[in-house]
Amino acid sequence: MPASPPSAAVVDLLGALAYGELSAFDHLADDAGLAPTLTARARMSEMAAVEFGHYQRLAERLIAIGADPEAAMAPFVAALETYHSLTKPSTWPESVVKAYVGDGLAADFYREVAAFLDADTRDLVIASLVDSGHSAFVVDRVRREIEQDARVAGPLALWGRRLMGEALSQAQRVVAERDSLASLLAGGVDRPGLDLAALGRMFTRLTENHCKRMDELGLAA
Amino acid sequence: MPASPPSAAVVDLLGALAYGELSAFDHLADDAGLAPTLTARARMSEMAAVEFGHYQRLAERLIAIGADPEAAMAPFVAALETYHSLTKPSTWPESVVKAYVGDGLAADFYREVAAFLDADTRDLVIASLVDSGHSAFVVDRVRREIEQDARVAGPLALWGRRLMGEALSQAQRVVAERDSLASLLAGGVDRPGLDLAALGRMFTRLTENHCKRMDELGLAA
Repeated sequence: MPASPPSAAVVDLLGALAYGELSAFDHLADDAGLAPTLTARARMSEMAAVEFGHYQRLAERLIAIGADPEAAMAPFVAALETYHSLTKPSTWPESVVKAYVGDGLAADFYREVAAFLDADTRDLVIASLVDSGHSAFVVDRVRREIEQDARVAGPLALWGRRLMGEALSQAQRVVAERDSLASLLAGGVDRPGLDLAALGRMFTRLTENHCKRMDELGLAA
Repeated sequence: MPASPPSAAVVDLLGALAYGELSAFDHLADDAGLAPTLTARARMSEMAAVEFGHYQRLAERLIAIGADPEAAMAPFVAALETYHSLTKPSTWPESVVKAYVGDGLAADFYREVAAFLDADTRDLVIASLVDSGHSAFVVDRVRREIEQDARVAGPLALWGRRLMGEALSQAQRVVAERDSLASLLAGGVDRPGLDLAALGRMFTRLTENHCKRMDELGLAA
């Protein structure tokens, strides 16, 4: 039993992460249908199943601190569904780049916010990172496709920039609309937080890591 | 390392079960989108993730006996996708009835075929049954909907009959096309099998269990 009611900010953060995972499950499962082989389809379905496992742990944590997962997730449905509807892959290479970029961005974001959480919630968030990285299988595949046909690199590089742009745009919308999340990241009376400049540096770090990942894929960021 | 090459029948059976699970994952994940609440959507997504776990164990077993999962599944893609395309739910009650009926039918079928397998494969198939039954949550939900509005019972009962009809029709198509599966069920020189009459009784038992499940849902079979 929690010693005190959970802070609105922690419920918000867990709700945002939980819906992020549930929607990732949904869209990865959907995108697996674009796979050219059953083996490739199974790999992307596996990523979806892993994200569902993350969702379950986040939902359990919400219940443990006395929050309702459904209510906690509701404020973030629009932003995440908008992101996914604006970045719906129409080819298999697009879907693997999206899976890789999205997985990496989510892991970076988990690492960034972990510092602002209580110890139990932080442990949970860190544990979610351990079985991430299932998207690494795509790196070789994308590099090989580009080697075989250099013309695919341009459109895929553009696709990667669009994914990052839409993700940042929705993240900024969420932070702007949810005071509690903004105050979690900006700090409070009892703990340090990020001032606006530090928040800007966080977005810069996320973007830099994204550029490194695009580079690993052999794509211009 | 297996003592001898796997029998074509065991590879066929594992391939059929594996693709059954992979396609169940895909369609349950898709149907979860019809859910009226995030909680209900998460419940059906959970069923999908459980089916994916079954797929993984079956694929690992295929690899362990020296078979290629992709090749083993390929002959069953058409039958299962035909089943799913002919039984695509258009409402949430239809999708929960399909999940419940499909989950139950699969479990019954696993139990029926387990007797014809070598000990290791049998243990795997039986283990897949242990974490089935995630669909039980739908029973209360469907019963309550029918109590609230008796008019939904008729169309849903018809839907249940259609699901069973299409499943049996595809199963018969598979048995007719795949000699090795038919011979597994029909027995061989070294072990007893089902003669035609016994095969008929098996289909009768599957149908009887289906009727019991429809009854539990409060639907005429």
